[in-house]
Amino acid sequence: MTVDFQRVEALVFDMFGTVVDWRQSVAAEVAARLADYVPALDAHDFADRWRAEYQPSMERVRRGDRPFVRLDVLHRENLITVLEQFGTDPDSIPEHVLNQVNLAWHRLDPWPDAVAGLTRLKDRFIIAPLSNANVRLALDVAKRAGLPWDAVLGAEVAGAYKPDPAAYLNTVEILGLEPPQVAMVAAHNGDLEAAGELGLRTVFVRRPTEHGPDQTSDLDPSGTWDVVAEDFEDLADQLD
Amino acid sequence: MTVDFQRVEALVFDMFGTVVDWRQSVAAEVAARLADYVPALDAHDFADRWRAEYQPSMERVRRGDRPFVRLDVLHRENLITVLEQFGTDPDSIPEHVLNQVNLAWHRLDPWPDAVAGLTRLKDRFIIAPLSNANVRLALDVAKRAGLPWDAVLGAEVAGAYKPDPAAYLNTVEILGLEPPQVAMVAAHNGDLEAAGELGLRTVFVRRPTEHGPDQTSDLDPSGTWDVVAEDFEDLADQLD
Repeated sequence: MTVDFQRVEALVFDMFGTVVDWRQSVAAEVAARLADYVPALDAHDFADRWRAEYQPSMERVRRGDRPFVRLDVLHRENLITVLEQFGTDPDSIPEHVLNQVNLAWHRLDPWPDAVAGLTRLKDRFIIAPLSNANVRLALDVAKRAGLPWDAVLGAEVAGAYKPDPAAYLNTVEILGLEPPQVAMVAAHNGDLEAAGELGLRTVFVRRPTEHGPDQTSDLDPSGTWDVVAEDFEDLADQLD
Repeated sequence: MTVDFQRVEALVFDMFGTVVDWRQSVAAEVAARLADYVPALDAHDFADRWRAEYQPSMERVRRGDRPFVRLDVLHRENLITVLEQFGTDPDSIPEHVLNQVNLAWHRLDPWPDAVAGLTRLKDRFIIAPLSNANVRLALDVAKRAGLPWDAVLGAEVAGAYKPDPAAYLNTVEILGLEPPQVAMVAAHNGDLEAAGELGLRTVFVRRPTEHGPDQTSDLDPSGTWDVVAEDFEDLADQLD
């Protein structure tokens, strides 16, 4: 290992895209549950558009236009928006179907290296999600997938959505640590920029198909991050 | 199983005394670390007196006399109080020794049945501490002991100390559940009284030596709790 991680006690992880493959998982659930209601449904396009509403909906909270609400609430509102984009009247779909579709985000599959890599990293570090997911969402994903978190942290516990500095700093404080004792692990340069500016260590993990085979963003590190890893097994190798 | 737990999705656990044997663990650390500084030290008496300051110190937060501070802070203040009760000038003890003694609460041993029982209960239920411990304390105990929590909840996440109703109700809300879908598991009748009044299900677990061989309190259930169990293995048997 070339980077000095001697002081680092905790690794905190972005979840959507970094730990789990949200796009394939959501598309599969959408295809299974909405095909009867949405004509000529392209489930991957639906998943992409649903995800596209994610940042704008959190931005209204970050700007203070509305009080903090958990991500489940934003996902549910955004589902209505996307159905309307697809020309479907949301009222034509039974409430219990919409609620089940919304829970697709609680049933995301991990990348193939995630459980094995996290299990190795847990031997040496505290590991926890620092995700914009609410606690129950992250908990359900972890319980279903077997992600061995030491705690479930993130936006709901911190009371702020990344990249609001409070999301990172409140999490560091809850861990009883200083920023250089915590490393942010993410497949997104923007997340690492925000964390790095606050003094956290930074780990970029390549997830070149998060957005599908034609992904153009976050293919490479854009900053001088402390570690660049191909996946979580590679990260465990490098920090060994 | 005689009690209907069909609707229950989550079991939330009191920690000190219910999951871990705080008295033996703290006494062992106190004996090892403070014998050089406290003449004629009775480590069990020291542990008992330290614990006796626990409720009064939280009560100042519950009454609103001071803002919420995590339990690590209260433990550290109470340590000074108890040293003075033992006639020891806290300033005569190096800061790093006091800090290590305070971390005794992060190194509590579980009762012998705890890990096996929780592991079985985790198959069917979400399991999480609903403790007055702060997140890092509960996390350190769990990591060292191998407690397989699905999440670390409790006073710090809820922003209130039990038996303040907010401690229970905020935890239920974070879990995305209604009170009857959550069962409070505790060795203390007072904890179950508070939880039961709010509509949570109640599980009393007997821990007759939490306070040592001469324990007089909480030897038996004082209310009509939904389940009474001898330990966590017995609880897993009853809920099977």
